[in-house]
Amino acid sequence: MMRKNPSLIVVGTVAIDKLTTPFGAEQTVFGGSASFFSYAASFFSQVGIVAVVGEDFPDEYRNILKERNIDLSHLEVKPGKTFHWEGKYETDMNSAITLRTDLNVLLDFKPQIRFSKMPEFVFLANVDPDIQLSVLDQVHGSSLKFVASDTMNFWIQNKPESVKKVLGRVHAVFMNDGEARQLTGEVNLIRAAQRIHQMGPEYVIIKKGEHGALLYSHEGVFLYPAYPLETVFDPTGAGDSFAGGVMGYLASARKVNLKIMKSAIAYGTIVASFTVEKFGLARLREVKREHFDKRLEVLKKICKI
Amino acid sequence: MMRKNPSLIVVGTVAIDKLTTPFGAEQTVFGGSASFFSYAASFFSQVGIVAVVGEDFPDEYRNILKERNIDLSHLEVKPGKTFHWEGKYETDMNSAITLRTDLNVLLDFKPQIRFSKMPEFVFLANVDPDIQLSVLDQVHGSSLKFVASDTMNFWIQNKPESVKKVLGRVHAVFMNDGEARQLTGEVNLIRAAQRIHQMGPEYVIIKKGEHGALLYSHEGVFLYPAYPLETVFDPTGAGDSFAGGVMGYLASARKVNLKIMKSAIAYGTIVASFTVEKFGLARLREVKREHFDKRLEVLKKICKI
Repeated sequence: MMRKNPSLIVVGTVAIDKLTTPFGAEQTVFGGSASFFSYAASFFSQVGIVAVVGEDFPDEYRNILKERNIDLSHLEVKPGKTFHWEGKYETDMNSAITLRTDLNVLLDFKPQIRFSKMPEFVFLANVDPDIQLSVLDQVHGSSLKFVASDTMNFWIQNKPESVKKVLGRVHAVFMNDGEARQLTGEVNLIRAAQRIHQMGPEYVIIKKGEHGALLYSHEGVFLYPAYPLETVFDPTGAGDSFAGGVMGYLASARKVNLKIMKSAIAYGTIVASFTVEKFGLARLREVKREHFDKRLEVLKKICKI
Repeated sequence: MMRKNPSLIVVGTVAIDKLTTPFGAEQTVFGGSASFFSYAASFFSQVGIVAVVGEDFPDEYRNILKERNIDLSHLEVKPGKTFHWEGKYETDMNSAITLRTDLNVLLDFKPQIRFSKMPEFVFLANVDPDIQLSVLDQVHGSSLKFVASDTMNFWIQNKPESVKKVLGRVHAVFMNDGEARQLTGEVNLIRAAQRIHQMGPEYVIIKKGEHGALLYSHEGVFLYPAYPLETVFDPTGAGDSFAGGVMGYLASARKVNLKIMKSAIAYGTIVASFTVEKFGLARLREVKREHFDKRLEVLKKICKI
């Protein structure tokens, strides 16, 4: 079988997590931004992972990604251990408490993009903004249609100039509400989004956890509720699978405009709503594309004014 | 001129506030739940206030209510001073810090409802739930179509049984997210709303500040974003004017069903969005019903999926 080059790639982390939630604990959960992103995106388009794992990375996890035909040609295996994150959620499921972070093989992650045909859609998950810039240099070219990035409070605090350089070079940015406020110094979220929009990205997507998402574009603001769930079991990966749903949908449309972006965000919302129903990728592994459309109909109905 | 009996009444407070926000301070601002509620409701229907003020209550404030033909026959004047609240908002405009509360004449507020024709719609703003129960006894009768209530953390903590008795006797309840969680012990807001729904009210309306509102009814959950504002100047009165818009719209429809309730909440959202743009009632005094419809069109557009 000839391998098809993926139209969408994600540069991020593949991790082995340890999680505690009010509903239970799990010693080893398959996690990482690139894992959640790619699994979510795979429902919509051909996606590839650019990441690094250690020699301990289990075949079982690799097979989970293979289930969805995710391109693993850029999943580098290095001597040492896979990135490990230990987190805890207390009653407030909106914010994780980090108990431990072992970067391991991530410490000298220097992604090299070597696809014979370069991807049209690129997602830079939350990694060092200087790494994001090096990837931007590599994917820059005539085939590139759309690139989006994510970041986190740590980089905003420690490398604000690099974060801003990335923002000047991407079409879209995904950020959570706290990060948007931190980056701009604006408490009001609409203003914060507006300020980030002025820094470069055509589409600013702010994730608000249980309160949904906000899109700021040249036509102003659009609001999306989260899918109403009676039980949020484990919020880990919600943001990355949201981005995966959005970017996967965009890549399947093969172009981006405001209308397509709005549909993409709706699908991202739905994918994320499944992610949080079980640990890791367990729930997403049970669902099919039809399940998304069913929830989308519900979402449309409950937020129609 | 024959006075028309109001179809909607509000039992609540009329206050003289002192406010500090990041945008400025004001020594005396006309406030109180009944003031905000009635002014907001007056855009939609004939409304009356059941409240008490002291001898210091200025004619200037009384005239503001008269501007909107608000029935003041049940605005009792008692020896002493008007209820006074001092509050402060810091950068997070979602929660007020109470600096001082002088109950004054409110201390022995015993509302007596003596309209020749009893109102069809009744709103019990946040007062002692035992006072709310006494009003329920008085308005109970064949003319009563719809009664809704509000409450606050103080009563949930100190008089939970009375709060629950009220819930067992109203058609709708307005509560903020924190109060809903406090009352039910459920962190998940959908579950909290469901639990409150089981306590009696047909419509459970949960106010989430900048994140909008949630309606729980027999058909499940409906979600409303807040109107996106770049500047929230003073959030005081947002919740009461939201309820005023909702109840005023319902009273104008003269009946309540899910469809009407959904439109009512949309109007409540819009009225509240004006309230927060200036101190006290200043912004609402500048707007006309046409302004509401314009914002409603915007709201429909930005949250359409």
